[in-house]
Amino acid sequence: MLEKLEIVRYYLTGLQATLCESLQDIETSGEKFLSDSWDRPEGGGGRSMVLEGQETFERAGVNFSYVQGENLPPSATAKRPQLAGRSFNATGVSIVIHPRNPYAPTSHANVRFFYAPAPESSNEEDIWWFGGGFDLTPYYGYREDAIAWHQAAKAACDPYGEHLYPKFKADCDEYFFLKHRNEPRGIGGIFYDDFDEGGFDNAFGLMKSVGNAYGSAYIDIVNKRVKKLYSDREKDFQEYRRGRYVEFNLVYDRGTHFGLQSNGRTESILVSMPPVAQWSYNYTPKPGTPEAELYDTFLKPQDWANMELPDDA
Amino acid sequence: MLEKLEIVRYYLTGLQATLCESLQDIETSGEKFLSDSWDRPEGGGGRSMVLEGQETFERAGVNFSYVQGENLPPSATAKRPQLAGRSFNATGVSIVIHPRNPYAPTSHANVRFFYAPAPESSNEEDIWWFGGGFDLTPYYGYREDAIAWHQAAKAACDPYGEHLYPKFKADCDEYFFLKHRNEPRGIGGIFYDDFDEGGFDNAFGLMKSVGNAYGSAYIDIVNKRVKKLYSDREKDFQEYRRGRYVEFNLVYDRGTHFGLQSNGRTESILVSMPPVAQWSYNYTPKPGTPEAELYDTFLKPQDWANMELPDDA
Repeated sequence: MLEKLEIVRYYLTGLQATLCESLQDIETSGEKFLSDSWDRPEGGGGRSMVLEGQETFERAGVNFSYVQGENLPPSATAKRPQLAGRSFNATGVSIVIHPRNPYAPTSHANVRFFYAPAPESSNEEDIWWFGGGFDLTPYYGYREDAIAWHQAAKAACDPYGEHLYPKFKADCDEYFFLKHRNEPRGIGGIFYDDFDEGGFDNAFGLMKSVGNAYGSAYIDIVNKRVKKLYSDREKDFQEYRRGRYVEFNLVYDRGTHFGLQSNGRTESILVSMPPVAQWSYNYTPKPGTPEAELYDTFLKPQDWANMELPDDA
Repeated sequence: MLEKLEIVRYYLTGLQATLCESLQDIETSGEKFLSDSWDRPEGGGGRSMVLEGQETFERAGVNFSYVQGENLPPSATAKRPQLAGRSFNATGVSIVIHPRNPYAPTSHANVRFFYAPAPESSNEEDIWWFGGGFDLTPYYGYREDAIAWHQAAKAACDPYGEHLYPKFKADCDEYFFLKHRNEPRGIGGIFYDDFDEGGFDNAFGLMKSVGNAYGSAYIDIVNKRVKKLYSDREKDFQEYRRGRYVEFNLVYDRGTHFGLQSNGRTESILVSMPPVAQWSYNYTPKPGTPEAELYDTFLKPQDWANMELPDDA
């Protein structure tokens, strides 16, 4: 009965290890991820992998978690009444990477699986779905990075149907949006939930395709930007913009809210917070500066995947 | 009909000016508050007074706002059905002060008035209430400061009934609490809402007493701490603890949520954010250090007002 769950967990723990190794490979300090396993008293647990205060990565968290519950509360099952009272399992890998260099963007990725097996000796069916996606938050925008990022997202989705990327891209733009600033969090990517299209093998295939595409797409971009010299000006702007990351995650992010409200492991949930953030009253960048270009060009949803890469990229 | 509202607004704009002057008096850079008036398209407006990046105050916001609305939505009137459909006015002064020196605590104060006049040619009565309070968030704890702060709070309340301070103190401890950390935001103070005890004059008297007590109580404490030398260690700890301030305000604070969700003026609402905040995975202070003392002694609700000041205070 638990076969589906086991193979997904097997993939996820492997993805966590692979990602940490790839990120360590470009961490010039030579430091490795700290591994921190924890149990959830109500059932389940996880492993947080954290790299902090290093040269390439100022704060990087790659979390695996597995939540087990006996009885889904009615509030969680309003939309799917057949779930009421079922035991459930939720497992996923969640990643937020904050590089030190302001020219290298922050990235976030998440792949998750929800599974509520049919009660034993019932005629009902297992209920399950997948969710996930990845999105990029640059401080200084590069057209070639935005195009490459979205093309990688599209390439990960297309084998599972060409209708997926446009929907997931639009859902990502809608989700990662700061209403109180009327401003997207970054240049987006893909975001999906409740996905069971084509049956388990197909939907699991999409999880693997998305999970595997994220690391190489992100590391390519970091490698291009991480050696560029910067001054206090760029660092201050990065820390100011990281304030928006804090605002989004604490005010809007459903995963963060769910975690904090459900007695989740606070330090693992909030590893998404940047190492340092600044706020400054009524700051707006001077027109014509690279900082203004972020707002004018990159913090506007655009059809990046269908743009042509610049010749010199 | 608007007499109540006018005299409260008159007091509040005066309180804002007085507080800014008192704070400027101890700002060693000599810099003055920037004044920023704004209109709310739906009715009302405000004036934000901000002092940023200075020697004494790294970020200080003293906001006056006045919100006018034509029709209270049913969601806002569930508990008081007689409010439905009434026009309303809400006005207040809200203050958050982040000193630069880690030995000087952050403080917050708010006094506010809600007023929904009886519809013309009706037999109904005006509906109004007051709310407010002040609370202190030290980074390094001092018993004499905690005692003086709570004694000032008690002294402000006592003339309006000795039952008030214990209730407002308990409500403050309950309100300024980070559930996901199982940790108070600071050493508390007083917090109240829906206050109309003893009629308008009495309840307005409490507002004035609380509003007037805050400034001198806080400035006394800042003056005692602001010249103490500190190093990166204390500054880092302050910025780390300021992360908790961010977490509280963005995850829990009802005023912040209401403001951000009701198309409030974002920069005025978020002037409560610290200038710089840090996050660090699984940080805990070493036992026996002053940082550990904050957690062990000061981040536990205590009956500060009834403790004796140390002899050397």
